[in-house]
Amino acid sequence: MRCDVLAVGTELLLGQIVDSNSAWIGEQLACHGIASHLHVQVGDNVGRIEAELRRLLEHADAVIVCGGLGPTHDDVTRDAAAAVMGVELVLDDDVADAIAAMFAARGRPMPQNNLRQALVPAGAEVIAQRRGTAPGLICPVTVGGRERVMYLVPGVPHELEEMLTRAVLPDLVRRGGAAATIVSRTLKTWGESESGLNDRLDDLIARLDADPTATLAFLARGWNGLEVRLTTRAASQEEAEARLAPLEEEIRDCLGVVVFGAGSDSMESVVLDLLRRRKLTLGLAESLTGGLVAARLAAVSGASDVLRGAVVSYASDVKFDLLGVTPGPVVSEDVALQMADGARQVLGADVGIGLTGVAGPDPQPGEPDVPVGTVCIAVVTPEARRTTTLQLGRHNGREQVRQFGVITALDLARRLLLAPVAE
Amino acid sequence: MRCDVLAVGTELLLGQIVDSNSAWIGEQLACHGIASHLHVQVGDNVGRIEAELRRLLEHADAVIVCGGLGPTHDDVTRDAAAAVMGVELVLDDDVADAIAAMFAARGRPMPQNNLRQALVPAGAEVIAQRRGTAPGLICPVTVGGRERVMYLVPGVPHELEEMLTRAVLPDLVRRGGAAATIVSRTLKTWGESESGLNDRLDDLIARLDADPTATLAFLARGWNGLEVRLTTRAASQEEAEARLAPLEEEIRDCLGVVVFGAGSDSMESVVLDLLRRRKLTLGLAESLTGGLVAARLAAVSGASDVLRGAVVSYASDVKFDLLGVTPGPVVSEDVALQMADGARQVLGADVGIGLTGVAGPDPQPGEPDVPVGTVCIAVVTPEARRTTTLQLGRHNGREQVRQFGVITALDLARRLLLAPVAE
Repeated sequence: MRCDVLAVGTELLLGQIVDSNSAWIGEQLACHGIASHLHVQVGDNVGRIEAELRRLLEHADAVIVCGGLGPTHDDVTRDAAAAVMGVELVLDDDVADAIAAMFAARGRPMPQNNLRQALVPAGAEVIAQRRGTAPGLICPVTVGGRERVMYLVPGVPHELEEMLTRAVLPDLVRRGGAAATIVSRTLKTWGESESGLNDRLDDLIARLDADPTATLAFLARGWNGLEVRLTTRAASQEEAEARLAPLEEEIRDCLGVVVFGAGSDSMESVVLDLLRRRKLTLGLAESLTGGLVAARLAAVSGASDVLRGAVVSYASDVKFDLLGVTPGPVVSEDVALQMADGARQVLGADVGIGLTGVAGPDPQPGEPDVPVGTVCIAVVTPEARRTTTLQLGRHNGREQVRQFGVITALDLARRLLLAPVAE
Repeated sequence: MRCDVLAVGTELLLGQIVDSNSAWIGEQLACHGIASHLHVQVGDNVGRIEAELRRLLEHADAVIVCGGLGPTHDDVTRDAAAAVMGVELVLDDDVADAIAAMFAARGRPMPQNNLRQALVPAGAEVIAQRRGTAPGLICPVTVGGRERVMYLVPGVPHELEEMLTRAVLPDLVRRGGAAATIVSRTLKTWGESESGLNDRLDDLIARLDADPTATLAFLARGWNGLEVRLTTRAASQEEAEARLAPLEEEIRDCLGVVVFGAGSDSMESVVLDLLRRRKLTLGLAESLTGGLVAARLAAVSGASDVLRGAVVSYASDVKFDLLGVTPGPVVSEDVALQMADGARQVLGADVGIGLTGVAGPDPQPGEPDVPVGTVCIAVVTPEARRTTTLQLGRHNGREQVRQFGVITALDLARRLLLAPVAE
């Protein structure tokens, strides 16, 4: 089974937006064991869309086409698909009613050209719209005597993702002939390189190579660490889960505290959950990160349960006057510790995190001997005090230094909060 | 002149990384008046790369190929290009020497397979590498009796961008037959919709339509506003600049204070520059934005000149105890104002910015009548006190509400700091 991707939109070619849909679809296809050889971006031009579709369908069993389903004269994906199928566009009354009802519910008049979205190539199956006005379309077509299929979905990411998951991927898997469900489990890690993870999981990888009941992949997520993903195909969800559960257990045993979460967890959500479970509150004192730790935590909804706040002490005398740091040089583990203590006191928090350092490009005034890229971190909990220093070097750049500081500080807090159990 | 783009890498098809290179290249091509009809992503497979190159070169005058120039056996772009040209790969001694010298300079032994990067299709021209080990290649080829060209460049974005700007775009423009320079000027705006900008610039747009000495385009940059871009093609840089200067002046006159910067300015850098020029320092008091204003300002190198710091008062009693806000409901313009005053005092700053609101998805506890998506902002300078309230609604989502709050607050500060001049 091979499924290629065609993204439609002149704005993609002009670089006004980056096509992240194709990558997302590619990831989903890979998860479901479906090959993808070509992803193509084409402009809003009916002839070119038609030509690309014909070309891709020579070799691919299916093509997912995203975008160009809107109501304006630029939106010509439907026309191109009808041309490839050699059929006319016909008005689908159910779709037209659904669009009219959506406008009525919002109390707005429906522009006539919205009815363009109810035009469907004869013989296509409609995927009902849930999040926007454009329905998706499943368009079967015969090319060179072989059965192919085109899936037309909207280009708006959250509409596309919902429709792909609900209708397109199941249909693709069914056409692929496998009466099977594909299930993945993702573990998130921080603190070990890809080759380090590989070494630790050597035995399991060798066993899965010999007996491929599941596949194991590493995905690099930059500042968010490395993911270990297990995927299996089985006759039912239950069977797949039963197969993955012991493998996940084995990976967790091998990797230990390096695994910080699973599925939709983030380092931020995990730290907030640990604090919530232990009924502890958090206060931050940030210098070089300038509020980034606080901002990332506050991005998680419900953070206000445990996050008291932060003091961003960018100027040295804010560290001295507000956080009570002893006046003097400001880049050391001892200063980070005083900042963490100050945050606990000033913000009335149980746990304090302090970060100070030199993001660069220039050294800290008055401390020329501290290398650019130095980050000193301290975490203070009711039962522990811990510090660490990163030396990230000048080549990493300001943003990289700040972001690595953030995740390293959160990971240190996580390990200390887990400590009674895991260390 | 038509130039298509081929991005090489299996990781692109698997969705492990998003191909942002093609969008960047597309934008550059558009700036230079070069059409681009297809962007394609293909895996690390020499046969498929070759097939795509042949296919694209049937209609395109040029193809920019990014990626697959590394030293490992996966890196097969050179081989595919040689196959399309019908020539052998030959070792280029200069490139080999340059790679060896680069390893020597870093005091590291050179793995033998790095010499793969010195292999060049016979007849290709080398673009010397400046930032990585892989050189670029200009590969002329005849297809169906017509002269075409392939540009091979590395996939690492900062290497690609440097090489495109230095060598590929000038070569393309030269081949396009125009002995011309293309110059753009970008103005950045906040506070006006695209159709609003269009209305205000109606006269100019009509004149440029009638006499296209320059083109004018609007580019939406989401939380970073809308850009107005002027582009012209002229015999020399001087001639182009002379043509653009009065047009830029006219746009600035029409749009007034809506234009916050030009070129590489950001809202953050503009606010920091204004403060620096007026010898004022800045302190922040953030609630719903959770440190995001501070983090964005601190991302600009040199921010420490003027940024004293921030108090992220996520919990209400941090607002009361640390910032001196009168206890009571915490989402109002008056509270934002008290927060801004508190920030000035606690952080010893000349200018204070305060933000409070409800990011959602749930209402603020104890204030059920304040709609989700409400953001109250205050800015206090030595000579002015100003507040504003955004009602962004629940549908915008937490991140959107926070980011709009940040830019709106910075823009309000900018207008007040400009005030003696612009208001």
